[in-house]
Amino acid sequence: MPATDALSRTFAALADPTRRAMLAQLAAGPASVTDLAAPHAMSRPAISQHLKVLRDAGLVTQSAQAQWRTNALQPEPLDDASAWVAEQRAIWSTRFDRLDETLARLQAQDPMPDAVQEDDR
Amino acid sequence: MPATDALSRTFAALADPTRRAMLAQLAAGPASVTDLAAPHAMSRPAISQHLKVLRDAGLVTQSAQAQWRTNALQPEPLDDASAWVAEQRAIWSTRFDRLDETLARLQAQDPMPDAVQEDDR
Repeated sequence: MPATDALSRTFAALADPTRRAMLAQLAAGPASVTDLAAPHAMSRPAISQHLKVLRDAGLVTQSAQAQWRTNALQPEPLDDASAWVAEQRAIWSTRFDRLDETLARLQAQDPMPDAVQEDDR
Repeated sequence: MPATDALSRTFAALADPTRRAMLAQLAAGPASVTDLAAPHAMSRPAISQHLKVLRDAGLVTQSAQAQWRTNALQPEPLDDASAWVAEQRAIWSTRFDRLDETLARLQAQDPMPDAVQEDDR
């Protein structure tokens, strides 16, 4: 799957329940790989691979503190993803508001004619 | 990529710039496959495949009107995706507000001691 742009990488990273659970865990505070692996019945390499996808999408940063590494949420890509969805929602809502207005105007000005009756021809 | 749950299917569908462009086009109103293909330098089968991903995610419905098919945006899965992101953002913000409060309280009560100086031991 070619996902070269930042927004595509963010959405692709979110398209997995394990990765979303990891982000939800990190939203509450930084965690070690061991902490992140704990809730999942999954091999350590599988957990590391999920973490790598989250890091590549810029959603998680890893910092080395003393002997262990801590993973922290980076919310900015989530904001970009949220903004994209909100924008489409706004365009869609505006369109339906306009349809409602048009319908209301048509009904006020001019009652809808009955369906054309073939019998009248 | 196993993406069996609805939210994963939604995010996976959004993880491609062509599919996001199609959704943006449909947010402005229903469109035929020809309309949706027009802005993209892409084969018709490739466009149809992208449309299939959007339909499988429940983001687009196809209805047959007269001889041609119309595609329309279904915004509900977008709302679910948006709600998930907003929830994580809220948890994260709450956590940072608590950190700010704790820091403010610590600073008010008790100035931070200087870093331990090795020389004093």
